Amino acid sequence: MTIHDLETPCALVDLDRLEANILGLQAYFAGHGIANRPHMKTHKVPEIALMQMKAGAVGTTCQKLGEAEVMADGGLEDIFLPYNLLGDTKLDRLVRLARRVRMSVTADSAVTVEGLSAAFGAAGLTLPVLVEFDTGIGRCGVQTPAEALALARTIASSRGLVFAGLMTYPHNDRTVPFVEETSALLTRAGLSVGTVSLGGTSGMRQAHTRKGVTEYRAGMYVFGDRSSIAAGATPLETCALTILTTVVSRPTPDRGILDAGSKTLSSDLLGLEGHGLVVEYPEARIEKLTEEHGHGDFGPCARKPAVGDRVRLIPNHCCQIANLLGKLYGVRGEEVRIVWPVLARGKVA
Amino acid sequence: MTIHDLETPCALVDLDRLEANILGLQAYFAGHGIANRPHMKTHKVPEIALMQMKAGAVGTTCQKLGEAEVMADGGLEDIFLPYNLLGDTKLDRLVRLARRVRMSVTADSAVTVEGLSAAFGAAGLTLPVLVEFDTGIGRCGVQTPAEALALARTIASSRGLVFAGLMTYPHNDRTVPFVEETSALLTRAGLSVGTVSLGGTSGMRQAHTRKGVTEYRAGMYVFGDRSSIAAGATPLETCALTILTTVVSRPTPDRGILDAGSKTLSSDLLGLEGHGLVVEYPEARIEKLTEEHGHGDFGPCARKPAVGDRVRLIPNHCCQIANLLGKLYGVRGEEVRIVWPVLARGKVA
Repeated sequence: MTIHDLETPCALVDLDRLEANILGLQAYFAGHGIANRPHMKTHKVPEIALMQMKAGAVGTTCQKLGEAEVMADGGLEDIFLPYNLLGDTKLDRLVRLARRVRMSVTADSAVTVEGLSAAFGAAGLTLPVLVEFDTGIGRCGVQTPAEALALARTIASSRGLVFAGLMTYPHNDRTVPFVEETSALLTRAGLSVGTVSLGGTSGMRQAHTRKGVTEYRAGMYVFGDRSSIAAGATPLETCALTILTTVVSRPTPDRGILDAGSKTLSSDLLGLEGHGLVVEYPEARIEKLTEEHGHGDFGPCARKPAVGDRVRLIPNHCCQIANLLGKLYGVRGEEVRIVWPVLARGKVA
Repeated sequence: MTIHDLETPCALVDLDRLEANILGLQAYFAGHGIANRPHMKTHKVPEIALMQMKAGAVGTTCQKLGEAEVMADGGLEDIFLPYNLLGDTKLDRLVRLARRVRMSVTADSAVTVEGLSAAFGAAGLTLPVLVEFDTGIGRCGVQTPAEALALARTIASSRGLVFAGLMTYPHNDRTVPFVEETSALLTRAGLSVGTVSLGGTSGMRQAHTRKGVTEYRAGMYVFGDRSSIAAGATPLETCALTILTTVVSRPTPDRGILDAGSKTLSSDLLGLEGHGLVVEYPEARIEKLTEEHGHGDFGPCARKPAVGDRVRLIPNHCCQIANLLGKLYGVRGEEVRIVWPVLARGKVA
């Protein structure tokens, strides 16, 4: 089977580039003594997570419990879930997972810690819990080293839990001072800081400049996309993921409509203008997406596509693609070598 | 089972409101002699399409061939596919579908017509083809009545095809003049205009003011969302779809983080500010989404939620929800009455 046999739109993964991306980042982390714990949210395929493990990763990172269940079923044995898990059914599921594989999580509040302790205390298990801190995106996380210390103490004194370190996403110049101040407080309190886990593909190659980091979580690096190209993190020629799409309409001399819309690409902009880079027509602008159409302006292109032509598109945000399409075609050149079902698709709960 | 037993995030459909929305729009169209052909892209569930049929719809509208295959499997017998279908495998699939159910499609170019004719001529079948025209969104569609006439003639003279009418999305003040001018040209050429199909939920209740319309396609009206509320098309108290979500973090006095992000809600803005309306905290603003988190500002709210609280959210764009979540919970009050798998999820090809 070649890519010419595939229905459009569909997602192609260049296997040579995928392998090189996995090995390349692993070599960087190995060179700096940083443990590599890639985030599976981008591909959501256990087999790709196992490729990352084979290259030297210490485990995988999942964002939701349903993803972790799929990864455990797929053979992953060490799963970090940096999310506040709340509610009896989720805690039951977490306990069941922790009986099968090595689980660790984060918390940023006493409420989260209380639930985890009740569940793991009752189960007679011990769960490593990291404190999430906020020097990054302004999302979850304790706001000050004093809060981090207080929560670490709560964890350390909670039945069924062990304090296991600090975690944030992404990282910046405020990260190291926060970690250093918190470490000093922890040491004075007789606690060891343990793991310091940072994340994010855009800053991944600066990880070694963040003093104290012990572990790193990157997701998008396996594929790369228009946003990580723009961030300087993944050169265009390393991008492993493209959307194969058909030009279905050329209603005006400049306009070209693709059969890939927001149900294929997502509407994510990530600060960019337009929706994806057309590989064969880099000057074209995908100005707008509706659900099943990409609205392209090919005006700036000297040569223009015809109705029925197939083109490849590098999406703005690769982390949405596997989740939307449910299938990834692994290719070498034009030959389809493997079809991966996206087993953790839609596992938001 | 009640909604308290469900894991968050998940999608709840208020069955009373769903039924009222289906019956209400049907009554409007019946009162104006307009055929109702609702778009299934919003729910992607054959059973809901059958509810629309039972209420009086003449058939269903699908945007992609994979959706039509699922609807045919689910018992829908009259399917309109307003899309340019291109390529041998898609044309083969269309022929196979047309042997099972009544199919009709659109075209906006001679290339599309040529492919359809080759496939249906060879199969010994006749396919009704409407000409798509562009007085709406600036997407696909012929640009002038003269182009519409030329394409209608090509269709009418093509083996295996019959010219069946005109179609656009959405509609505006340019629509009726375009239809009238094209009709005059068609009549002079000895062709009958046939169906005039308009679409769009925001303009659905203005359909009767568009002289010449015979059929209408609306999708979002079944659920309603923040965008259709803003457009004045679906009052808040008729909105049938909400996302049940948990407050997983309250890292600052004002900030509240939900467990529903862009993989639950999509990043669609549709011209709105923020990402959804929190039913219990209507003053709150969901300022940003990351993949698995909704970043809420509860500063404007007198009362604020606690970690672990569940809230309901009306999304910006309901058409993305079923596709992302893969499951819809039909509820009456707090009781879960039915769980619909989203059978046409991810059918982009």
